[in-house]
Amino acid sequence: MFSSFGMHVRTTVFGESHGVGIGVVIDGLPAGEAVDLDVLQRFLARRAPGQKGTTPRVERDRLEFISGLVDGKLTGSAVSAIIRNSDQRSDDYILDIPRPGHADLTVEQKFGGHMDMRGSGPFSGRLTAPLCIAGGIAKQLLERRGITVGAHLAVLDTIRDEAWDPVHVTAAQLNAMQNRSFPTISERAEEEMLTLLEALKEEGDSCGGIIRVVATGVPAGLGEPNYKGVESHLAQLFFAVPGMRGLSFGDGFAAVGMRGSEHNDPIRYEDGRYSTDTNHAGGVNGGITNGMPIVVTAAMKPTSSIAKPQNTVSFTKKEPVTLEVKGRHDPAIAVRAVPVLEAALALVILDFMEGTHGIK
Amino acid sequence: MFSSFGMHVRTTVFGESHGVGIGVVIDGLPAGEAVDLDVLQRFLARRAPGQKGTTPRVERDRLEFISGLVDGKLTGSAVSAIIRNSDQRSDDYILDIPRPGHADLTVEQKFGGHMDMRGSGPFSGRLTAPLCIAGGIAKQLLERRGITVGAHLAVLDTIRDEAWDPVHVTAAQLNAMQNRSFPTISERAEEEMLTLLEALKEEGDSCGGIIRVVATGVPAGLGEPNYKGVESHLAQLFFAVPGMRGLSFGDGFAAVGMRGSEHNDPIRYEDGRYSTDTNHAGGVNGGITNGMPIVVTAAMKPTSSIAKPQNTVSFTKKEPVTLEVKGRHDPAIAVRAVPVLEAALALVILDFMEGTHGIK
Amino acid sequence: MFSSFGMHVRTTVFGESHGVGIGVVIDGLPAGEAVDLDVLQRFLARRAPGQKGTTPRVERDRLEFISGLVDGKLTGSAVSAIIRNSDQRSDDYILDIPRPGHADLTVEQKFGGHMDMRGSGPFSGRLTAPLCIAGGIAKQLLERRGITVGAHLAVLDTIRDEAWDPVHVTAAQLNAMQNRSFPTISERAEEEMLTLLEALKEEGDSCGGIIRVVATGVPAGLGEPNYKGVESHLAQLFFAVPGMRGLSFGDGFAAVGMRGSEHNDPIRYEDGRYSTDTNHAGGVNGGITNGMPIVVTAAMKPTSSIAKPQNTVSFTKKEPVTLEVKGRHDPAIAVRAVPVLEAALALVILDFMEGTHGIK
Amino acid sequence: MFSSFGMHVRTTVFGESHGVGIGVVIDGLPAGEAVDLDVLQRFLARRAPGQKGTTPRVERDRLEFISGLVDGKLTGSAVSAIIRNSDQRSDDYILDIPRPGHADLTVEQKFGGHMDMRGSGPFSGRLTAPLCIAGGIAKQLLERRGITVGAHLAVLDTIRDEAWDPVHVTAAQLNAMQNRSFPTISERAEEEMLTLLEALKEEGDSCGGIIRVVATGVPAGLGEPNYKGVESHLAQLFFAVPGMRGLSFGDGFAAVGMRGSEHNDPIRYEDGRYSTDTNHAGGVNGGITNGMPIVVTAAMKPTSSIAKPQNTVSFTKKEPVTLEVKGRHDPAIAVRAVPVLEAALALVILDFMEGTHGIK
Repeated sequence: MFSSFGMHVRTTVFGESHGVGIGVVIDGLPAGEAVDLDVLQRFLARRAPGQKGTTPRVERDRLEFISGLVDGKLTGSAVSAIIRNSDQRSDDYILDIPRPGHADLTVEQKFGGHMDMRGSGPFSGRLTAPLCIAGGIAKQLLERRGITVGAHLAVLDTIRDEAWDPVHVTAAQLNAMQNRSFPTISERAEEEMLTLLEALKEEGDSCGGIIRVVATGVPAGLGEPNYKGVESHLAQLFFAVPGMRGLSFGDGFAAVGMRGSEHNDPIRYEDGRYSTDTNHAGGVNGGITNGMPIVVTAAMKPTSSIAKPQNTVSFTKKEPVTLEVKGRHDPAIAVRAVPVLEAALALVILDFMEGTHGIK
Repeated sequence: MFSSFGMHVRTTVFGESHGVGIGVVIDGLPAGEAVDLDVLQRFLARRAPGQKGTTPRVERDRLEFISGLVDGKLTGSAVSAIIRNSDQRSDDYILDIPRPGHADLTVEQKFGGHMDMRGSGPFSGRLTAPLCIAGGIAKQLLERRGITVGAHLAVLDTIRDEAWDPVHVTAAQLNAMQNRSFPTISERAEEEMLTLLEALKEEGDSCGGIIRVVATGVPAGLGEPNYKGVESHLAQLFFAVPGMRGLSFGDGFAAVGMRGSEHNDPIRYEDGRYSTDTNHAGGVNGGITNGMPIVVTAAMKPTSSIAKPQNTVSFTKKEPVTLEVKGRHDPAIAVRAVPVLEAALALVILDFMEGTHGIK
Repeated sequence: MFSSFGMHVRTTVFGESHGVGIGVVIDGLPAGEAVDLDVLQRFLARRAPGQKGTTPRVERDRLEFISGLVDGKLTGSAVSAIIRNSDQRSDDYILDIPRPGHADLTVEQKFGGHMDMRGSGPFSGRLTAPLCIAGGIAKQLLERRGITVGAHLAVLDTIRDEAWDPVHVTAAQLNAMQNRSFPTISERAEEEMLTLLEALKEEGDSCGGIIRVVATGVPAGLGEPNYKGVESHLAQLFFAVPGMRGLSFGDGFAAVGMRGSEHNDPIRYEDGRYSTDTNHAGGVNGGITNGMPIVVTAAMKPTSSIAKPQNTVSFTKKEPVTLEVKGRHDPAIAVRAVPVLEAALALVILDFMEGTHGIK
Repeated sequence: MFSSFGMHVRTTVFGESHGVGIGVVIDGLPAGEAVDLDVLQRFLARRAPGQKGTTPRVERDRLEFISGLVDGKLTGSAVSAIIRNSDQRSDDYILDIPRPGHADLTVEQKFGGHMDMRGSGPFSGRLTAPLCIAGGIAKQLLERRGITVGAHLAVLDTIRDEAWDPVHVTAAQLNAMQNRSFPTISERAEEEMLTLLEALKEEGDSCGGIIRVVATGVPAGLGEPNYKGVESHLAQLFFAVPGMRGLSFGDGFAAVGMRGSEHNDPIRYEDGRYSTDTNHAGGVNGGITNGMPIVVTAAMKPTSSIAKPQNTVSFTKKEPVTLEVKGRHDPAIAVRAVPVLEAALALVILDFMEGTHGIK
């Protein structure tokens, strides 16, 4: 129950950072559809470490499908895949001393030392790899239905990227991000951000970021009233991504200071369909998509693992300890989280596509 | 599925704004516990219209329990209750012309005119009344376990209320809000906000607000890894509250501009338990509570129903129309949403209390 | 969670036998479809007491819809309805002394005296009335899609009714049962059964029965592999009907003594569709419907409430007691359970229809 | 959704008979408990082919844990394991010609030829191996809590095994079955059954069987009212086992011919606890366990894969075909299903143990 997500397309992830491996089971995918494994691998590579501005640690992830995919086509039975762990430097992690900001403390409080927390165990960002396998497949299925999902690193610390127009953003703009080696729209932002990330590495510190995730071509009518609205369902998955601290739709927190007359999107009818002049709502009204681009904004906290000395305790000695977290860590988890949130949005849209009444 | 929420304590709401009535079924409440109906009614009154700064429309809500409660005690079978609708001025609503910012358009796109959308039908803020019945009961059960939930209107437009200290906030501070006739901590904020609300009524316009919801006394260890973390589970419910546009935990979006060394909460051990010096995390690490106060921040959009003229269309004529929404509407839905979010947080905590492994 | 059933069309029942009332919430019904309330009331009447061979106790059940149905059409939001309890002779039930065969003992063991067990509380057969409201609506929706559900009392004690041909049974044969005042196909069986039931009333004893439930016109392809096969999903609901002790599909237990060469249904292709010469499988292979009639057989135990003296204990005195259950009870619960199982099968089929991949 | 089972302990199976492998994810197991892998392997061996009276086909199943188990202890995160397929003689199966009694036809009708149905694909009895991994772990956890699950082949065709006394059956009697090389209590029954199985192999035919599954030491109070009673929850899982055609509790179908005065179990109080003199109910009243042994009876159909010629069709040519299924098949699937149903009952009991209110 805890490791599964989705109503109609159901994803289950498993594994620990430093155990045998990690994996995913995806249930409810449509039989007969093709999955391009090269495209999938390229998508996974965007999340992998070793890229610009991220940890030099290398995951040599070899994706191994166990079931559900024969000759590059979905069979209709549950898709499953595993990735074996290879880069296991477990001595980087000391289990007696909880790292501030991590689940180390709460896992001790809840499970009493039984969980394998090397490398954060099942709480590791590594568990976003199986989510990306599922989401990468979802992205391909959606693209074939005319739906494109893309994302960029909108803010790092206080450095802002360019922005997409929430009304006129195109699939081409979203897809262009797939080829960027750093997840910003603008090269100016990339440059400034890489400089900051380099400085943070030097200092042994970290910072947070804001990611904007957008989908175009989403049909109107996805989502259900009450507790299965698009925002509800999506928020459940997004807040499961490690480091997520805030989430908003459309204008989000900025809507607070707006007037209703300014925030309401005027409605029009053109070429046989309804649309809105503006898109303050971010593509969703009353939990149901209205056909405009879906616009989601997510805030990621600064990486918790930092080299700077921090005050904490020893579980065994119950005494104060000063900790300097060793190992190779991303100075900002927001950088590699960009494709993860694309995966999450794609999965949520596909889930509604497969199950929403009247939409197929 | 769509109208239900919760894993162990499961709440189902039903009803439409202008139909026969609205109601709730709550499954999984512990047998034998008392429910004080006077306390419950006072809680519901905080959400009802007719209060300071809200619509003068009066809901004469008579709560009628159908099952699950005998002589003021929970029997262990599903609790159910209905409230009949009385104040039905359906002529205020014109179904042919979708109100910008409402679900009118998306419901037409999805259900094709079949849904009873008088008064926004099942999308009405009125459906938060059954949620408050469930949440009001949850609050009583939690209080008995030493857990207190409270909330205040932290921001209206650009007017800020005082703030609670996220480390030292007390149950008494939270409970003091129950007796306020306007949901701010400070009377200065109340005064300024009431002035603004009065002005907005004159203008026929509306504004948004930010609500802060806090719980004290929450035991460490609630929440599950992966997709059933506290944030995930809570976000699903919060985003089902009409008008919710943003949600964050602890420092939320402000964490983006912080350094890890600043945002990580130092851990200490004192008097036989672990705690943190600061509470930037808002009481949750890795989806699991750490015993510190839970701090949630929610952004509500401006009320969509405004008297000012707006551009929209006629469904039947497919022609542009200028609409002035008549009727008595709250100039800011955030005001009455304060107890609703208390109810939601209480339900989520109780749900985890009843089901989390190892916690009772 | 406990009081809900269904994946896509989700039914929640609530209420206790001798409390204020009972009711149902049905979520996920298709917007815009008509519900004939007269047909629904006639269906409910088949389950009500006061009929041939049943208890003379009269339920004057007035069905009151709260939401989801406007002008006889489903709106797409949750349908809810309540029935108030009127015939409350709670003095017939003694709570200190558990009736053998009832939930009285297990409820004490589990809930410790808190549950309102007058008239068996939420365990009462009366809770099958809300199930029949949901199922009666489902039957109407299915009929419109060419699917008919019917049932008969195949065996009472050792008296056998005629049988339907599992290959050629028609919708007309199934529908003919709606007009029978006793749920057998043959009048000979009715006569013998009524004589037995009269004798049992005299003796203050009871007997069991077997109900056969059949559906025609069910499309091939309903049901999912693994744990959501048709049998699995249906069995979950059927075993929730009070008194159910056994369930089988197709030839059921008789298949044990057959050879594979005899039990396998030969496959043929005719007029553009596949079918089987025989129907030993009861319309389902591997959890998925094959287009042949669905044939389900259910065994109901003898009514537990009997007038004959029985050995039991007093909860308060912990002493042996001889109990003679007073009150008006059905000598065989199987008689009134016939439409209940029709309702259950109809709900399961509709649930799969609304959600099965590729079927609409 | 389709491949998962359980509320609190959630099992997900995946894989196809002739694909890369099969596997399981088990979520919600208690952290810190030991799992004896030797005991688990011995349990799995009881289900494996190559035993007395079963197919000579050998599965060299090497169980590989991916997560959740470190140094023989459960960590609290999801347990996952895979078994690679080795014995793949896919030429035994012809996909164009559906085997009567199999899912071949319904899968074609539903998925249109996309599913990998070599060796019955995901419908293969091989998928009961992952179920046994989960159930074998559950059995160990239950045994430690004083609960024992056992089963025997009660009937094969018309040959009957001895029976356990439903009131006084002991854990020792149930555990004795673990050491039997054929799953009957009596050696006389074994002998007769093996003779029949040999004869069926000669004839190229098959027969059905009845399995009785029993649990002792189950605490009173497991199970929830309404749709989550013990029978409902268990039936859902049991009917997912390939070949299951009938299921009953306690006296089952035999209860039909009994009087209530005979079937009701008299209640007594002794040594501080309630029990019943007889156990016609099979340990469950009103969906809740009463502390007596749980007694479940399951009917398995004859193996569908038989060598005798059968009438079927060609999917491609739409013409009648006579089929003789080649390959090595069990003459009675009931033989190897005995430990599978033990696994299923153990999982259901553990699921309720972990989640039922007030029971731990």
